[in-house]
Amino acid sequence: MLLTEIIGVGSELLYGETVDTNTAEIARSLQPYAVEVRRTLRVADDLGALTAELRQALGHARLVVLSGGLGPTPDDVTREAVAAALGEGLEPDPEVLRWLEGLFAARGWAMPEANRKQAMKIPSAAWLPNPRGTAPGWWVRRDGLDLVALPGPPAEWRPMWQQLLPQLGLPRRAYAQKAFKTFGLGESKITEELGELFVRQGPAEVGTYAKAHGVEVVIRGEPEEVERLARLIRPKLGPAVWGEDDATLPQVLLHALEARGATLATIESLTGGLLGALVTEVPGASRVYLGGVVSYSPEAKVRYGVPRQIVEQGTVSESCAVAMAEAVRNTLGATYGLSTTGVAGPDELEGHPAGTVFVGLAGPQGSRARRYRLPAPSREAVRQRAAHAALFLLAEELLGLGRPLREVKG
Amino acid sequence: MLLTEIIGVGSELLYGETVDTNTAEIARSLQPYAVEVRRTLRVADDLGALTAELRQALGHARLVVLSGGLGPTPDDVTREAVAAALGEGLEPDPEVLRWLEGLFAARGWAMPEANRKQAMKIPSAAWLPNPRGTAPGWWVRRDGLDLVALPGPPAEWRPMWQQLLPQLGLPRRAYAQKAFKTFGLGESKITEELGELFVRQGPAEVGTYAKAHGVEVVIRGEPEEVERLARLIRPKLGPAVWGEDDATLPQVLLHALEARGATLATIESLTGGLLGALVTEVPGASRVYLGGVVSYSPEAKVRYGVPRQIVEQGTVSESCAVAMAEAVRNTLGATYGLSTTGVAGPDELEGHPAGTVFVGLAGPQGSRARRYRLPAPSREAVRQRAAHAALFLLAEELLGLGRPLREVKG
Repeated sequence: MLLTEIIGVGSELLYGETVDTNTAEIARSLQPYAVEVRRTLRVADDLGALTAELRQALGHARLVVLSGGLGPTPDDVTREAVAAALGEGLEPDPEVLRWLEGLFAARGWAMPEANRKQAMKIPSAAWLPNPRGTAPGWWVRRDGLDLVALPGPPAEWRPMWQQLLPQLGLPRRAYAQKAFKTFGLGESKITEELGELFVRQGPAEVGTYAKAHGVEVVIRGEPEEVERLARLIRPKLGPAVWGEDDATLPQVLLHALEARGATLATIESLTGGLLGALVTEVPGASRVYLGGVVSYSPEAKVRYGVPRQIVEQGTVSESCAVAMAEAVRNTLGATYGLSTTGVAGPDELEGHPAGTVFVGLAGPQGSRARRYRLPAPSREAVRQRAAHAALFLLAEELLGLGRPLREVKG
Repeated sequence: MLLTEIIGVGSELLYGETVDTNTAEIARSLQPYAVEVRRTLRVADDLGALTAELRQALGHARLVVLSGGLGPTPDDVTREAVAAALGEGLEPDPEVLRWLEGLFAARGWAMPEANRKQAMKIPSAAWLPNPRGTAPGWWVRRDGLDLVALPGPPAEWRPMWQQLLPQLGLPRRAYAQKAFKTFGLGESKITEELGELFVRQGPAEVGTYAKAHGVEVVIRGEPEEVERLARLIRPKLGPAVWGEDDATLPQVLLHALEARGATLATIESLTGGLLGALVTEVPGASRVYLGGVVSYSPEAKVRYGVPRQIVEQGTVSESCAVAMAEAVRNTLGATYGLSTTGVAGPDELEGHPAGTVFVGLAGPQGSRARRYRLPAPSREAVRQRAAHAALFLLAEELLGLGRPLREVKG
C-alpha cells in the first residue's frame, strides 16, 4: 500500500487550545483510495522540527498532506520547512501578490507587510487557490510523490482539497463501511460473541468503539466482504442493536414515537437535564417531546407530582423511579414518561454508592424500572450512562428489542 | 531540551471516531517541566507500525508516553508493541490476574478469556494500578529513558498519570499560566483592547480561545512576565471577566449562591435540559440547585405555571422568559429562577429566525430578561450559547458584574 503522511502544523494543536480535527477528516477522505495511513502527526510551529519530519516523510511516502502554518505571522513556518526539505528557495509571485493586495484593498486597507510571505512559493510547487482566505496552498509533484500544503481553517482547506484530491491520480479501492450500534453489551462480551468474525486483518476489518450510547461495531473494507461480515455479525448482536450507521439513539426513538403517534415526557434527578438535552438535540423533537421536570431535590419531586411518602422512603429506589415516570406522564398527558434517579457521585447518597442508578418508564402498558450499578470513573460518565440507560429502556419498549443479554458495564 | 514523544494508540483516533484529546492533555501536563514536545502522534492499531514508531522513539527520547491500546480485544496491541520494541517477552502476572477476576466476580460475572491479556507484562515494566478500569498501565525505566503506557479513557489514565509524573524525576522549569475567562466580548474586540499587550513571542505569550462559556485570555511563560502581563491585561477586560484559571461558570455561580444562602431553579425551552445539566455538573450542586422544568411545549409551560395568556401571545418573547423564571421560582420557592426560550433552529419559530433567544431571571429584586440574536451555525451551538447566556445573566446579578460591553457575538 502507498504510504500517506498527514500532518497538522501548529503548537496550538499539540496543546489542544485548538482541537485538531483536520488530520482525521483528511484521513477519512482517503478511505476510498488504496493508500495507507499508519499514523497522523501534529507538529509544533518549529522550522527545524517540521523540516525533519518532512525529510523523513519524503523518503517513504507517496502522499504528504499538511494543514496549517500558511498564515502571515512569524510562527507560520510550513512554506519555509517545505522549501528546506526539498532544497529549494522561496520566490515571490507577483501575480499572487497583486491578488493579495487586492483582497485588502477591497476592504479599504493597505496589505500588512507580514502578508507578503503568503505570496512566496518554491519553483516546483503549483498554487492551490484559496477562495476563502489569504493563504493559498501549494501542490508539489515530483519523483512519484505528491506534497500538498493546505491552510488550517476547515472552511478554507475543505473546498481546496475536494477539488485537488481526484487530480492526484491515487488508485481507488472499493470501500464500504457498516456500523451496528448496540447497548447493554461490553466490548469483551462482543468480542466473545463474534469469535472468528472479529476480523482484524484482510479485505475487511472489524472494530469496536465504546461510547456513552453503547458499543459500536464497525466493519470497513471491501464492499463484498463488508456485506458478508455484516450479514453474519448482525444476528450475533441480536436484540442489543438499536441502530445502524449514522443513526443516533434519540433520533431512532423520536421516529418510533412519531410513527405511532405517541408523545414523551421526562423527569430527571441525577442527570439534571441531560436526558432532555439529548432528546432535544434532534431537530423537530417538539413534534413528540412535550418536556418534563428536573426534580433535583426531594422537594421538587413532591412539587411536581411524586407522592411525598415515596420520596421520603428514599429517592434512590425502583419505586421512586416508577412514581417519577408516572407523575410526569400524568401531568403532561404524555404517552410515555421516562425517569432517572440515582447517585452521580463522587459521594454516596442515602447509603448507595456512586453509580447506583434507577431508570423508569410509564406507558399505556403500565410502569417498570431497572436498576444499574454503573462504574463511576467520574460524575459525568455516570450521568451520561444513566441518561442513555433511560433512552434504552424506552428503546426496548418502542423497537421491540428484548432485554439485553446483560446489563451495562465498563 | 529533553525530547518527549506522546503517542495516542488507536485507529479510531486517526479517523476521528474518537477525537484524540489525550495527547494534548499529556502535553499540557508537561509544561512545568524542561522537556520538549516537538510533535504528537496518533498511531493505528497495527503492531508493525506501532513497534516501528517505538523503536525510533527509543533512539532519541527521554520520555515516551502512550495512551490507548491496553484493552482486552485483539486490536489492542500496545503491550505487544512495547515488548517487541524492547525485545522482551510477555508474561502473565498471577496477582493481577486474580485482581481482574475479582473485578468481574464482584459483579457476578466470569471474566471473559479476552481479558487475560490485561494481566500480561514484560519483566522490565512496573505495574501502574488502574483504580477505575480493567487495564493497568506499565512504567518502564531503563537507559535514562522512561516509557509509560496508559489506558485510553481520561477518567482512567488521569489519576494514574498525576501520581506517576512527579516520580519521573524530570527537571522542572519556571513556568506559569494565567487565564481570564470572559463573556460578552468577541476575540477581535479583545485583540483590539489589548493592543501591544497581545504578546505573541518572548518570555511569555498571550492567546485567546473562543469557547461556549466565552473567550478565554491565556498568558503563559516565565512566571514574572506572566504576572506582569496579567496585571496589565486584567483591567482591560473589565467587567467581562467572570472567572480565572480552572474555574467553570456553574462552579462560580454555585459558590456565589451558597455564600449568600440562596437557591436556584431553572426552566428551559430551547435548551431542553442543557442549562440544568450544566448546573448539575458541579459536585454538591444539590446544596443550592432545587431543580426545575423543561417546558419544551406550550402546554408544558402552562402546566408548570406559566400564565396561559402569555404563552398564547408567543413563547419567543421577553415576557415569556420573565413569566417562566417567575413560575419556577414560585413553584419551588427558590431565591432565583432562571429561564431560556427561543429558536434553536434550523427552522424558524413563531416568525423568529434560528438564534433568537431570550433569557430571564426572577429574584428578590424583581425580574428581567435579555434578548440575544446568536449566530446559528448549528442547532447545538445556539443551545450551548443560550444556556451560557442564562448563566451569565445570573452572574451579573450575583457577582456584581456590569452589563458586558456588548452582547454576545461570533
